[in-house]
Amino acid sequence: MAVKYERIASELRAKIQNGELQPGMQLPGEQVLRADYKVSLPVVRQALDMLESEGLVDRVHGRGTYVRMPRQRVRRTPERYQWEKDRVKLPESQRRRTGATERDTGLTMADLEFHAEYRTCPAPEDLAKLFGVPVGAKLLQRTYRTRSKQEDTPLNLNRSYLVYDMAAENPALLDPRGEPWPGGTQHQLHTIGIELDRIVDHITARPPGPDEVEALALPPGVSVFVLRKVSIDTSDHVVEVSDVLIPADRTEFVYTTKLTRWQA
Amino acid sequence: MAVKYERIASELRAKIQNGELQPGMQLPGEQVLRADYKVSLPVVRQALDMLESEGLVDRVHGRGTYVRMPRQRVRRTPERYQWEKDRVKLPESQRRRTGATERDTGLTMADLEFHAEYRTCPAPEDLAKLFGVPVGAKLLQRTYRTRSKQEDTPLNLNRSYLVYDMAAENPALLDPRGEPWPGGTQHQLHTIGIELDRIVDHITARPPGPDEVEALALPPGVSVFVLRKVSIDTSDHVVEVSDVLIPADRTEFVYTTKLTRWQA
Repeated sequence: MAVKYERIASELRAKIQNGELQPGMQLPGEQVLRADYKVSLPVVRQALDMLESEGLVDRVHGRGTYVRMPRQRVRRTPERYQWEKDRVKLPESQRRRTGATERDTGLTMADLEFHAEYRTCPAPEDLAKLFGVPVGAKLLQRTYRTRSKQEDTPLNLNRSYLVYDMAAENPALLDPRGEPWPGGTQHQLHTIGIELDRIVDHITARPPGPDEVEALALPPGVSVFVLRKVSIDTSDHVVEVSDVLIPADRTEFVYTTKLTRWQA
Repeated sequence: MAVKYERIASELRAKIQNGELQPGMQLPGEQVLRADYKVSLPVVRQALDMLESEGLVDRVHGRGTYVRMPRQRVRRTPERYQWEKDRVKLPESQRRRTGATERDTGLTMADLEFHAEYRTCPAPEDLAKLFGVPVGAKLLQRTYRTRSKQEDTPLNLNRSYLVYDMAAENPALLDPRGEPWPGGTQHQLHTIGIELDRIVDHITARPPGPDEVEALALPPGVSVFVLRKVSIDTSDHVVEVSDVLIPADRTEFVYTTKLTRWQA
């Protein structure tokens, strides 16, 4: 357990976390660390690699290692779904005030910048199967990026799919200028008479593609969570599928399973 | 979207998935792929890197690229917790027959090899806080590795913690020779009068350490899920904490959130 590079990483990590090393500050050089800890250079580098992959430091070639600006952390719980459902019946003035992202991050609407893009696409096989429509059927694809104004990359990349003909029952749902829609997708669905019964989260993780590394500013070696969120209405039809790409170095999912009591 | 290397990867992936390329078979060489797809060598290599990071192929230096033996996939749902709770009250003969891992993988007990190691350790800060005991208090640490007999590495690495004095109320709980315990941890806790009220799953992911790459046979670039499972009893005390390291290339978590109906 007490591997040398882990001990070095853990001491430097503690200094970053307790503020002794502030964002932007330079860490001691590799040779200094080597002498201090009486280890070889590869061991020092392994420790710094570890901190880099955790997103705590940036290593600038030929210059040194710097404490990274901390990234917005997200704690995502499924309680956000019932919370959003309860808000559907509130007046617009109240729905306008806050959303699920604010709930997960503790940020306010003034801290966030929201971007939405709509287009249509033919249903690929997996989505067609979920929605119960033919492969190639017209879908409305909505891409959302929400960014903390303190940071230059979005918190996640969210791609949401609706069956186009269903969405078109309310033409306002086809217009991205209605975003951010007060009350979110559950309110949008409500305008076409849909109530959700349940939401199923599928969580996997994979290494990012080069374009995703760039879009989400991922440190080397960091994976992305792929959250496929499937929304099912009260007559058991899939009515929305969202694929959310989430940086794995700044997100925690928390799910509570309540158990029924044993009979006395 | 239609990046060249993604298209090549997607065609080769389809051939692996539909069985045209079988486990152990060699893929066409890099030069052949380059000519077939009319792309540069770096693009071919990016496509092969992608398949490798998904665990679909092994690249053997100087020899070529081979289809990997498929790994046991795990679909982990929290329904396993209620299932395990319901089984506590069954007679031992029935509890002995199957367990939660079999439930998640579809394998039988004959397909699995189970390994348990017990030791004691002083409570670090985070666990002490969860259990409500002083830092340094004696914990029972149990390490479990469950392996499919078809594979040479375990499905996951599970490290479970109990407060030692609590476990010692039933001396049988201190003896690893009682493992695999019919009915699992919830039955073990039942023998000392404990009933669970809820289980909280915390899911994060991070790049593996070198020892973890080895222990779980992770392909390059693949992360591990870290599932911290916190079990809370009916008097609101944390009674067990498990940290489960799970390969991210062969696991899906599925959580269903049931929503309450709007009032008519």
